[in-house]
Amino acid sequence: MPRIAIDMDEVVADALAEYLSRYNADFEEKLTKQDLLGKRLADLVPSEHWPRLDAYFDDEQFFRNLEVIDGSQEVIRELAEHYDIYIVTAAMEIPCSLAPKFEWLQRHFPFIPPDNYVFCGNKGIVAADYLIDDSVYQLERFQGQGILYTSPRNINETRFPRVNDWNDVREMFLRKPVLAGTA
Amino acid sequence: MPRIAIDMDEVVADALAEYLSRYNADFEEKLTKQDLLGKRLADLVPSEHWPRLDAYFDDEQFFRNLEVIDGSQEVIRELAEHYDIYIVTAAMEIPCSLAPKFEWLQRHFPFIPPDNYVFCGNKGIVAADYLIDDSVYQLERFQGQGILYTSPRNINETRFPRVNDWNDVREMFLRKPVLAGTA
Repeated sequence: MPRIAIDMDEVVADALAEYLSRYNADFEEKLTKQDLLGKRLADLVPSEHWPRLDAYFDDEQFFRNLEVIDGSQEVIRELAEHYDIYIVTAAMEIPCSLAPKFEWLQRHFPFIPPDNYVFCGNKGIVAADYLIDDSVYQLERFQGQGILYTSPRNINETRFPRVNDWNDVREMFLRKPVLAGTA
Repeated sequence: MPRIAIDMDEVVADALAEYLSRYNADFEEKLTKQDLLGKRLADLVPSEHWPRLDAYFDDEQFFRNLEVIDGSQEVIRELAEHYDIYIVTAAMEIPCSLAPKFEWLQRHFPFIPPDNYVFCGNKGIVAADYLIDDSVYQLERFQGQGILYTSPRNINETRFPRVNDWNDVREMFLRKPVLAGTA
């Protein structure tokens, strides 16, 4: 079976929503994902807020309670019938996220065996046919076919096939052929 | 640069020594690595001891305090000048080992960046030219050239090039060519 590697944050786990929610609560702001189109949060907020932003990732609870991205569970379950599915996350950037990410995957994607989790840094090390990821940095390193999953920061990128949501992923990987001339 | 993936347990971290030391202390035994040649510990000890053996891995401290395998630091430092080095460990089998393994690598191999750590299950997902591993199971799945690092349980295996220690690894990957006819 062809192998699809799937990123976690912003692809199956809504880390950005949690990040904005903490920021808005701490600084009485009302920033939305819409405000972040083509930008990083650091472009929008005063530099004196940055240390507080970094600290969100030092809290193990951050990664434990992320919402699941709409449609990802259903579509990945369907994909798993036709493709070998691996979850591949750059967890080494935030070591305290290792255990919470493992637990989160077990809770929300129990049909993917831990044998198919990959916690890494540089995704150039991943041997797969496809990588669905919102990080242009990682897609540039990956040796197979990269698929860009839309997130606010990547909307101006044009070098990779793009999916905007999990319906688009289903359409790309599970579309039925149209058979002409069958009686 | 060609890429070498290197396993942790029994290749750079002496998990078996710690395992035997705990077993011998708990049951007043004197088992050695020599006793384990071609066997698993479960073949040698009464089945009523097995639950205690499994429990060693549930202790986070187990993976924090492992001895470094002789020669691994020096040789990997030399290899890193000519090869792209990744540490690849099947940590998903034992989720409580994730954080301790990260800390252990930072302490004992500070010259390998965390970007080059891979914590996975099935090593068939690893895109590298070589994998140095004591697990036949993993070498069978790996798509590049597998190199079997000798450990007691694998001494009867003949399907892979074998290294008995880190001097053998140095010899295999860093041997200088003999130049005939140079004046």
